[in-house]
Order: sequence, then C-alpha cells, then structure tokens
Amino acid sequence: MKTEGKTMKKVLFATTALIATASMAAAEVRISGYGRFGVDYNDANDRAVNGVPSTTITSRLRLQFDMSTETDGGVVLGARMRMQSESRDNAAGTGVWNAARFYASYGGFTLGVGNIIGAIENTPGMYLETRTAGTGIDGAGFVSLVTNVNNEYFNWDAYSSAGAGANGVEVLYSSGAFNGHISYSTRNGAIGLDRAAVNVSYTFGDWTAALGAQDTDIAWGDKVLVTLQGDLGQYGVRLAYADNEGISKWGLYGNMDIGAASNILVWVTDEDAVSAADVLAGRGDNRDTALLDRGEGTSYGIHYSYDLGGGASFEAGWRESSADNTTVQAGVYFSF
Amino acid sequence: MKTEGKTMKKVLFATTALIATASMAAAEVRISGYGRFGVDYNDANDRAVNGVPSTTITSRLRLQFDMSTETDGGVVLGARMRMQSESRDNAAGTGVWNAARFYASYGGFTLGVGNIIGAIENTPGMYLETRTAGTGIDGAGFVSLVTNVNNEYFNWDAYSSAGAGANGVEVLYSSGAFNGHISYSTRNGAIGLDRAAVNVSYTFGDWTAALGAQDTDIAWGDKVLVTLQGDLGQYGVRLAYADNEGISKWGLYGNMDIGAASNILVWVTDEDAVSAADVLAGRGDNRDTALLDRGEGTSYGIHYSYDLGGGASFEAGWRESSADNTTVQAGVYFSF
Amino acid sequence: MKTEGKTMKKVLFATTALIATASMAAAEVRISGYGRFGVDYNDANDRAVNGVPSTTITSRLRLQFDMSTETDGGVVLGARMRMQSESRDNAAGTGVWNAARFYASYGGFTLGVGNIIGAIENTPGMYLETRTAGTGIDGAGFVSLVTNVNNEYFNWDAYSSAGAGANGVEVLYSSGAFNGHISYSTRNGAIGLDRAAVNVSYTFGDWTAALGAQDTDIAWGDKVLVTLQGDLGQYGVRLAYADNEGISKWGLYGNMDIGAASNILVWVTDEDAVSAADVLAGRGDNRDTALLDRGEGTSYGIHYSYDLGGGASFEAGWRESSADNTTVQAGVYFSF
Repeated sequence: MKTEGKTMKKVLFATTALIATASMAAAEVRISGYGRFGVDYNDANDRAVNGVPSTTITSRLRLQFDMSTETDGGVVLGARMRMQSESRDNAAGTGVWNAARFYASYGGFTLGVGNIIGAIENTPGMYLETRTAGTGIDGAGFVSLVTNVNNEYFNWDAYSSAGAGANGVEVLYSSGAFNGHISYSTRNGAIGLDRAAVNVSYTFGDWTAALGAQDTDIAWGDKVLVTLQGDLGQYGVRLAYADNEGISKWGLYGNMDIGAASNILVWVTDEDAVSAADVLAGRGDNRDTALLDRGEGTSYGIHYSYDLGGGASFEAGWRESSADNTTVQAGVYFSF
Repeated sequence: MKTEGKTMKKVLFATTALIATASMAAAEVRISGYGRFGVDYNDANDRAVNGVPSTTITSRLRLQFDMSTETDGGVVLGARMRMQSESRDNAAGTGVWNAARFYASYGGFTLGVGNIIGAIENTPGMYLETRTAGTGIDGAGFVSLVTNVNNEYFNWDAYSSAGAGANGVEVLYSSGAFNGHISYSTRNGAIGLDRAAVNVSYTFGDWTAALGAQDTDIAWGDKVLVTLQGDLGQYGVRLAYADNEGISKWGLYGNMDIGAASNILVWVTDEDAVSAADVLAGRGDNRDTALLDRGEGTSYGIHYSYDLGGGASFEAGWRESSADNTTVQAGVYFSF
Repeated sequence: MKTEGKTMKKVLFATTALIATASMAAAEVRISGYGRFGVDYNDANDRAVNGVPSTTITSRLRLQFDMSTETDGGVVLGARMRMQSESRDNAAGTGVWNAARFYASYGGFTLGVGNIIGAIENTPGMYLETRTAGTGIDGAGFVSLVTNVNNEYFNWDAYSSAGAGANGVEVLYSSGAFNGHISYSTRNGAIGLDRAAVNVSYTFGDWTAALGAQDTDIAWGDKVLVTLQGDLGQYGVRLAYADNEGISKWGLYGNMDIGAASNILVWVTDEDAVSAADVLAGRGDNRDTALLDRGEGTSYGIHYSYDLGGGASFEAGWRESSADNTTVQAGVYFSF
C-alpha cells in the first residue's frame, strides 16, 4: 500500500503551500486543500420521484488555512480554518467557512480548543484507508465505519469542515509508539449534550491497536471502539469493532497495492439489530422511523485508486449498504 | 486599443499572486483579484422616493483563488473559487464565497464541472471591451449586451462570482484560430430548467467571428448570437446580433486609443419590440409587468479609460437605456 | 512599555505575510491576522439560569487580506478585507467575511471608502494599550472606553471586522506630528442615520493630545472626546474624557513595564448619571430598560501581559463594571 493512500486521514495533516512571513520568523500562514469531482450513481435517487437524477455530479473544493507561531519557550500556538464548497445529489452550495480549532503544542502534548478533532473521530483504524476516508469519490455516506449504526451517523465530536463543530477542549499526547487523546464538549453549554471521549493506541512493528470510548447522555451515544490494523508492505489489513450503546458492529478491511500506482480496497461490515427491549422502549434519535430497519445487517464495498502523479489520483468505489442502497462513484482527486 | 483593455474579459483570466508550494512541484494556489470603487449617478434613484440617493458609492472587492496541479500524464486538474464584497445603490454586503468551477485540461481540451463558464457567456464579442465588461465602473447593468432583452437579463448559464452558478458540465476546445465550447446544466436537477449551449469562433488576421446558441425550455431562453470583431491596432470595432426567442437586438461598438494611456469606447444597441402574438399569449418571465415597455428601442453609451500604471486605471462611463434610465459613473479600478 | 503592546491598535496596521506577485511589480496581497483563546469568567452567566456556564472558552481567529498596488503617479490604491471566526459565552460561530474598506493614498492624504475606520474610532488615546484594545483576552466589553456610556456601546462609525460597517467616506491626513481625520456615512442611505465625525491629534515629544467629535441625529450620538497620553519609557499614562450628548465619562489609565517581558495596566472610569430631564423625556436607544441604572458610576480593571516571543503573549485581565458585572479572563494571543 502506498504512503499516499495511507496518510489520507479525513480531517488532517496535509499542508503544501507556505507563505513566507516578512517580519516574524516564527509565524506563518499555510494554504492548502484539495479538489475532487466525479460522477455518483445512487439508486435512492430518481429525477421523477425526488427531483434528483440517479446519476449526478459530486464535487468538493476545500481550502485550508493553517496559522502558527512558536514562542521563545518552544510552544507552538496555532489554528486551523477551512472553507468548503460542495455539491451532492446535484445541489451545489456556495463556499462556507467553518469555525477555527486553536491549539498549543509542547513536546508530545497538544491542547486543542474550539472546533476540536475529538477522541472518537481521531481513533486510529476507524476510517477507510482511502483519500476520501470512505468509499468512492465523496465517501458514499461512510457506511464502512463501525461507529455509524442505527441510521444515526456521526454521533460524536468531530472537527467540522463546514460548521462550528463541538466548541470543546481536548488534550492529545504522543510518545514514541503510544498516542492518547481525551476530549470534552458541552455542545455550547446546553445541558444534557456533554460528550466525553478518549482514545489510546499503540504501534508495535507493522501493527497498531487502538481503543476509543465515548460517554454522553445523548441517546445511543455511549460507544466503545476497538481496532487493529496492520501495514504489511504491499498489503494492509484492518479489523474494527464498536459497541454503540448495545448495538454491535464489526468491520473487516483489506487493501493491496497492484503494480506501481494502483491500490484496491475491499471491506465488509455487519451490524446487529437493535435489541427488542430498546425498540419497545422507543429509544429515540434514530433517523429511520421504521422500527424493523434501523441499519442492521451486512454492508460491503470495494474501492480502487490510481495515482496520477502531481498529487492527483483517480478514485472509484462501489458500496452496498445494509439498507439496500447502492452507490457507484468515480472521479478525480487532487491536492494542492 | 491597449492590450490591457482588450484582455479584460469579465469572468476570466488574470492571476498575479503565486504562492510557491513546498512539497509538490506541480501543485499551486494563486490568489489574485481586483478592487474598484467610484461614484454612480442613477436617475432611477431618489433618496426621498426609494431611500437611495441618486448619487451613491459603488464598489467591489474580488478575491480569486486558483488551485491547480499537473499529473504525470500532463493533465492539468484545477479549480477556481471567488470571494466577493460589493456595494451597489448604497447597500453594502459582506463578502461571500461562490461555488467552485472544477476543470481538467489536456492539450486543447478542457472539461469544466460545477459553476461552469457557459457557452453563451463565453462567446467572443459579447461583452464590452472595458475592464468591467460593461459601461462605467460597475457595468451599469450590462445593457450593451445583445443577449439582454425584454427586461430579462442574464438568461443563460454563466460563472457566478457570488453564487452557486449552474452546477453544469462543459467542454472547451481550442486549436489555433478555432475555439469551441459546449455547455449543459439542469439547474440542480429541476425538470424544465435544462440549458444546452454552444459557441464556436474563428480568428482570421485582425478579425474574430463567433456564433453562440442556447436551447432551453425556460421562457425567452432560446438564443442565437452572432458577433464579428476587429482589432485594428489603434481602433477596435465590433458588431453583434442576437435572436432571443424572437426578439432581435443589434449592437454596434467602437473604441479608439488616444495618446499613450487613454481609450474611448462608444456603443449603441437597438432592441425589437416583443411580437404582438407573444404579448397577447402573455409569455412569462419578463420582469417588467407593463406590457408595452419591455426594453425595446435604442440604448447607447460612452466609456473612457485612462491607464494609471501598476495595474490601475481610471474608468468613467455614461449610458442611456431604452427604458429612459440614465447612469453616469466614474472611479478607479486596480488588479492585484 | 514594550513596542509590541504599544502598537496593538485594535483595527489596524499589522501585516506580516507577504505573497510576492509574479507579473505586476507593484501589486500584492498580504495575509495576516491573529488567534486568541482563553478562559472567561463572567458572573452574569450561570448555566442553570441562562444556559451559559459562568466560565467559558472565549476565542477568535482573524484572517486579514490586504491588497494594494501603486500607480505610476505614486498613488497607492488598496483594500482591506477580513474573515473572523469567534466564540463568546460558549457560542461558537462559523467564520464570516466583513465588507471591504477601499482606499487611495498619496503623500499624507488617504481617501477611504466603504467599511471606513471612522474618525471617532480612530482617535488616538481612546482604546486601551493592550493587544485586545480592552481588558483580558477578548476585550471584556470595552467598558474602559469613555465613549461607551448609558448601556449603549459603539455608537459611532467603526471598521467592522465581521459585518458590512458604515459604507461611508473618510479622509485622513498626516503631516509630521499632526494627524487629522474626517468621516461621513449615511448608514446605507437611510434618512436620519447620517454620522459626521472628525479627529485631530498632535504629538509633542512623549505626549500626544487628541480631540474627536461626532454629529448625528441618532439618539445619544453627539460626542466630544478629548485624550492626552504620554509614553514615558517604562511608563505609560493616559487621560480621556468624553461628553456623550450630555453624559460625561472620565477615564484614567496607567501601565508599566516590569522586567524584560511583562507589562501591567490599570484603569478606572467614572460615568455620570443621565440627567433627570433626559430620563423623564424617555430618550431612547439605551439598551437597559431600568431607568435608574444606565451605566453611571465607577468601573475599573487591571490587565497583565507577558511577551512569549514569536509574536505570542499571555494576556490576563480583571474588570468590574459600574453595573456590578465582574469578568476575569486569561489566555494566549498570537499574531501571524
């Protein structure tokens, strides 16, 4: 598996354009980002039914501004801000700013404030090893995540690329093979929406094991996540499991380099049904009103990537969700 | 006529600020744009009547972000994004992002996706040969365009600088003296709003001839546009004609360099009345409720430009529309 | 007092990141800004009462774009645009653009148009000599300004960092020790909202004296402001007085360098009660409905700054307003 595919964590780290600063040696602004556009076939769309053709253009442009400086004492102070312009299901939006994440780093410690990354979001081994961190050219709903269950997705704090995010606090620690992360937010102070989360991970040789957990009063929000991933040169394998307040979901993922520029990835997940007791109790917050189809069952997908050079690649993916939804996508992705 | 005035196509090409990229040789972000501000006299305004003084400040700041990279195979992948802050008729808005146009170019071909330029918009010889592409410092309503008729303006796909645009697809082709362009959009999937357009142009010596056409179910949207322009050193002349679903409009345009830094431009257009049959049939979508004054008649204008150096110029213009509206504007315009 | 603290005028002048321009020697875009984040204790907040914890995160990220070019005749044409993302009282907003201020400068003269600075806002000696121009990490309401009275704050034209501002016109003049500034706006043409303002200042040795005034029909908007400030090496002292349409407010401010990196600042203001005649007449536009507590009385504060190097500092402040509101704030501030 190529380094490029491997480092494509959804929210994070690529910055390429550096503006030299005139008067302060330590301070800088970096502008980077990516563009991607392609074609999305989604069998849930039908122009005659919901006004959306089954085949549409999907696209996103992201600009990322990274500002930082370093104090005389070696503390790095910085912030990350994004602008995003997106089209999904043929609906194009104008660009919007998100809210900033601020941070202070010293040694292995980082304090984050504002639009935090979040400890569940940042657990190693949760997202797909693709440039979109999901299947296809726009992620195709991120069905592959074992923390997305019960038709209720992204029920955790995560750096928001087009919104204000959790406005929380987090501490990250890194020392050699060990990484740890705790995060906390009150969703802007509202009572009952607090989220506390943690993750720890350890890398031994080619393998990384990680554990994540979230505690909250938000319905279906208590989570325990376990992952194990191996980077075996040409091959990558990964196993993930989450208990989502009683709903288990398993995921198995494998990818392989083919020739000099291609990588192919396959995945399968299996989600348990909600327990009869919970269904009868009518526990809320799931977006599907049908009691008997809350997302349980098997989902799977396949993704193909071809490195075009210059930071660009061709990406294609097909996935079937447990809710019988099929998407097939292909397009190009380029970083700058 | 000076090169500067000549290349000031409304939507396009000037980029000046280049941010060197640190880690990818081929990828870059360019920031460019322009500012303009001045005074607008408009006899349709009256502070006592509509709350807007007849003389107001008109201003615009545009920031343009151009991102691109080149694959190993020589395909350029890129996107264009704009931020615009504007004041017209004394109403200042805060800056807004538009939506991105994505593209892939190879040889003479370019595929565009998203906030497309559009084939009618991009037909050579449609806009005025001024920095604003219209008369005065803010274009003064672009009355000079032969495709703007029947009090219904900009009824074609065009790159939107402050909105989401058409979310369409287009292909441009250039080979020597020939340029061609086809575009298609569904206005985000709504049925009955499809627009298909094409333009072709050919340059022979000092002259360029162009033909544009649009087909759509949108009322008054079928258009055929023909232009012929000559760049005769000190002089520029241009003729344009459009049939706008039965409404003809002619335009004649001439400009002349005076001395080392000045250019003066004059234009006149003549628009036919809507046919009695169409008026009786009550064909919709024209913004003027009065049946008898839909824009027919003669409009004319004069524009003066003085090159100040450093990418800045003084711009002034006066125009009379066929609807008896007078505007006189003057101000400065600078690129960066 | 350190230069750094001294030059931190709220709205103005720091720009650090310069993007070299490729094709026009004179034109450029500069990107600069600052981030700040910290903790705010405000005894007016109570999670059980108004949903806001008494201790919250306060943060702001500002990006500033400065565009300019110079004509052959030596006139500088330019514009300033800002993006701001902010969290106060635990409510995080996404980033927003403001509207642009345009300018033309030649010799000591500057013409400003659009989102103008404003002559009251720009009167020397009005804001605190801190990085936030107020107390603490986010200004803590800018109670220290003698032009903020009667529970009605910022009743003058000022460059808006997150809005459209006054859309006015202004002329600034500077010659040696003398600075002058006149500004005028109609608040986008609405009748009765005109504001005219002026300031003049003169620096003699270590001392600067300034006079500002505003004339308007907006209730409580007529103002006369007098300031005197001295920069005495290690010490800074300042005196300010304003008559706000009959409401007097005095302010006394002193700051002192301590050691190589610290500065401590203390201030006290005293605001007169609204005259009985005005109270009985029910003159409007004050935000406090209680007739007997419109802000009169004594306010005071203390602010501590520690220079961390690299354009970063630690900032902390405590202030008591005359309305018995206590805030204590501490955090970090960094420029880029």
